[in-house]
Amino acid sequence: MVKTNPGWFFEDYTLGQVINHAVPRTVGPGERALYHALYPARHALYSSDQFARASGLPQSPLDDLAAFHVVFGKTVPDVSLNAVANLGYAEGRWLKPVYPGDTLRSTSEVIGLKQNSNCKTGVVWVRTRGLNQNDETVISFVRWVMVRKRDVDAPAPETVVPDLKPALAPADLTIPDGLDFSDYDLTLAGEPHRMADYEIGEQIDHVDGVTIEEAEHMMATRLWQNTAKVHFDATNREDGKRLIYGGHVISMARTLSFNGLANAQMIAGLNGGAHANPCFAGDTVRAWSEVLDKAQTVAPGVGAIRLRLVATRGGAPFVLKGEDGKYLPHVLLDLDYWALMPV
Amino acid sequence: MVKTNPGWFFEDYTLGQVINHAVPRTVGPGERALYHALYPARHALYSSDQFARASGLPQSPLDDLAAFHVVFGKTVPDVSLNAVANLGYAEGRWLKPVYPGDTLRSTSEVIGLKQNSNCKTGVVWVRTRGLNQNDETVISFVRWVMVRKRDVDAPAPETVVPDLKPALAPADLTIPDGLDFSDYDLTLAGEPHRMADYEIGEQIDHVDGVTIEEAEHMMATRLWQNTAKVHFDATNREDGKRLIYGGHVISMARTLSFNGLANAQMIAGLNGGAHANPCFAGDTVRAWSEVLDKAQTVAPGVGAIRLRLVATRGGAPFVLKGEDGKYLPHVLLDLDYWALMPV
Amino acid sequence: MVKTNPGWFFEDYTLGQVINHAVPRTVGPGERALYHALYPARHALYSSDQFARASGLPQSPLDDLAAFHVVFGKTVPDVSLNAVANLGYAEGRWLKPVYPGDTLRSTSEVIGLKQNSNCKTGVVWVRTRGLNQNDETVISFVRWVMVRKRDVDAPAPETVVPDLKPALAPADLTIPDGLDFSDYDLTLAGEPHRMADYEIGEQIDHVDGVTIEEAEHMMATRLWQNTAKVHFDATNREDGKRLIYGGHVISMARTLSFNGLANAQMIAGLNGGAHANPCFAGDTVRAWSEVLDKAQTVAPGVGAIRLRLVATRGGAPFVLKGEDGKYLPHVLLDLDYWALMPV
Repeated sequence: MVKTNPGWFFEDYTLGQVINHAVPRTVGPGERALYHALYPARHALYSSDQFARASGLPQSPLDDLAAFHVVFGKTVPDVSLNAVANLGYAEGRWLKPVYPGDTLRSTSEVIGLKQNSNCKTGVVWVRTRGLNQNDETVISFVRWVMVRKRDVDAPAPETVVPDLKPALAPADLTIPDGLDFSDYDLTLAGEPHRMADYEIGEQIDHVDGVTIEEAEHMMATRLWQNTAKVHFDATNREDGKRLIYGGHVISMARTLSFNGLANAQMIAGLNGGAHANPCFAGDTVRAWSEVLDKAQTVAPGVGAIRLRLVATRGGAPFVLKGEDGKYLPHVLLDLDYWALMPV
Repeated sequence: MVKTNPGWFFEDYTLGQVINHAVPRTVGPGERALYHALYPARHALYSSDQFARASGLPQSPLDDLAAFHVVFGKTVPDVSLNAVANLGYAEGRWLKPVYPGDTLRSTSEVIGLKQNSNCKTGVVWVRTRGLNQNDETVISFVRWVMVRKRDVDAPAPETVVPDLKPALAPADLTIPDGLDFSDYDLTLAGEPHRMADYEIGEQIDHVDGVTIEEAEHMMATRLWQNTAKVHFDATNREDGKRLIYGGHVISMARTLSFNGLANAQMIAGLNGGAHANPCFAGDTVRAWSEVLDKAQTVAPGVGAIRLRLVATRGGAPFVLKGEDGKYLPHVLLDLDYWALMPV
Repeated sequence: MVKTNPGWFFEDYTLGQVINHAVPRTVGPGERALYHALYPARHALYSSDQFARASGLPQSPLDDLAAFHVVFGKTVPDVSLNAVANLGYAEGRWLKPVYPGDTLRSTSEVIGLKQNSNCKTGVVWVRTRGLNQNDETVISFVRWVMVRKRDVDAPAPETVVPDLKPALAPADLTIPDGLDFSDYDLTLAGEPHRMADYEIGEQIDHVDGVTIEEAEHMMATRLWQNTAKVHFDATNREDGKRLIYGGHVISMARTLSFNGLANAQMIAGLNGGAHANPCFAGDTVRAWSEVLDKAQTVAPGVGAIRLRLVATRGGAPFVLKGEDGKYLPHVLLDLDYWALMPV
């Protein structure tokens, strides 16, 4: 009997199936420091215990996307080891901050299946939840991937495409208990711009660029215990390139967006996202954002801002797609998320 | 007087000599996170405090090999700075888990000496012990190295070759206090295979590969405060290559072996090992294992499995040596160890 | 309104102005471990809680230069984003050790201004202070940078060049509360040389070299939340090179100086420093030191040694400048500092 994990194939998934993913992870100050070494992370709430306390939290939590990557990474051996493509995200919600000492594990429920017409692949939709040591859900999100079939002759399952929200409504967002931006210190946070200073439709070029290194994306991807071979093994592709984990690009773009959006402190929702083109070492990643929406929340001084975050490997900002409707070759990521910021 | 460390030469060692190595090290969550960023480490006991507690330990210890590297690193300035070759390991025992906050130091006793017939070098055997802040031995092992003589005319010492066990017996292994795999969660651990599912003689190709980067092996080697120049200085060799610390290959192979041996949780003994060929950046490291032996232990639900772990830079698995009896050029490491796993 | 930070220009500074820099940072075991992974740091006081306690401190502090980099990094967006050159340091003082859990922020006071005769740039002197969560100053230093003018026609400010000490006197140094080297363990520290064993004028070649990698200097620079574009963006210069943060060279040289100065445990003062030539990935950094002065302190067993620390990219040690009075091309750094060591 083969002892290694061959990954799951399309016909291994059934609707309603719950997969308990392996290898729980206790996170702490080491993960935090590494996140800040690998990305230009500067959002004050995730940098300073004092700033977090002044915002009503007990201490500085693990960066929102670091928590996401940990939860996501656990799903890879069961969901995307044989994935041909990561097709999308929806209904991502940050439900509870993750603090040093918390232990995270992940479960996924299969909520949609659709065999492709070529009979060689199919699309699997899963709703993944990250749970802490008290079995509280800290993050949940839907993603869908195209997965190979083991046997092209295996019968197709009944097609079920889940009904997903094109975007979370502000009321769908969970505000961390106690969060309060009434006494928010703009100077310490790094920029004077409150939510009121941003207009819907406003576009921001985040200016800075970071050239990607193999050692860095591999360290990040391993830290999240993401095992996808394409990120680590230069012999995996004919061109000898290692494909960079899409989450590395997400974190790079989000942290680059500090310059212009320093007060968009916490990610609260992920409406959708596309990895438009693959990223490789040597690419210099840049980012721009567009304000899609704004809303008040019930928490004192806390607003919610909906942002499009686009990562590029250079090229002009503020353009996404060509006349053919396809992403331009220099666009790496098109992400749609909600962040919490002082009103 | 020269202030820098010239390293020790063969004639500096005397039988029975005890060397107290420098620079004690307090280890903690930062070392743990870096280990998991530098290697694809996924063994649940070293990843989750909850999993460690469910296994009878107070919390998740520092990874077994990270502790080994810290203890080993301290010996380099006194034992292997002038080493021509690391010849072997024997009688390695993990006696006590290392927890965050522990401070490690190392001592070595010279237990064997043999001048080579060329009169230019000799072999030194040392038994190294790693001690914690309570002077408890946490790790002990024997290694032997070939060391240059300062003066070829220095008299040869009496030849003493220590009598070393070809392998530890199961009864030689120390089981951590309280370790209990009775309620072991195979799902969380990542694979369904208990010790009973492995047969003696069984071989496992661990499938995955990791391409080695300069930044990564240097960060690892520095973290263990290993000062050997060949790992850091590209001007040290004529070909401009930096030789990769053998321990980097050991950790890479051991963590790659998760895929197929996820439940071989803790290393308890090191029977022997050879660094068959040097490893350099750009090599893609792979690993295979062979089950050499199995035994019960006195701890509830805990078995001991003896494994050969082989690291390669590609090439066919399951072959080690050519017709000339020498390791094949693609073989990097041949290690023989005992691990603890659920029976 | 542009939301991103354009940096400050020469005419934005006024004498006496106080700048409160953004993004406070809680430091901990993760930062410590990364410092020891990125540099060959081995000074025992910063490596072992036990060694620090035996020296009268409550635990091992964050490495002196790591604390410096954190404080320095915060000033970059306001002081040196548009800097043409970092011209010098003076009157640097380590006033209080930084411990895990401390939160650091920085403020700078403008203490000097001098427009250059070309009217395009000017020199700004700032005294920067790093403060902890109790508003205690932990580090202070003066640095001066050449900054571009936004508008060449902007009027020149009154020229004020601050009166800076060419070097701190021993009496200017602050010894950490409780520091006591009476029972200092030379064996654990790694070398037998006390301050008495060094002569003024003595020169030490630290022998070892480290070849610099892009991933490493970027991780370090990001960890200190230093945002200067030239360190991260390979498209920023015509030659595609990333300029390495001068502080990376300082830390590399200081940690390399362990080999020969293992007992120069803590940096207490920075008298001056020049980044003589830029450093790039691929350079192999080496270091040599010269003993400039020695003094007693009031703390038991604690002496102060004044050292010149020179980093090179190879080439002969112990030479700094050519016949033209300029630094030789292989010299990277010329630093003048006080360290505390056992008498």
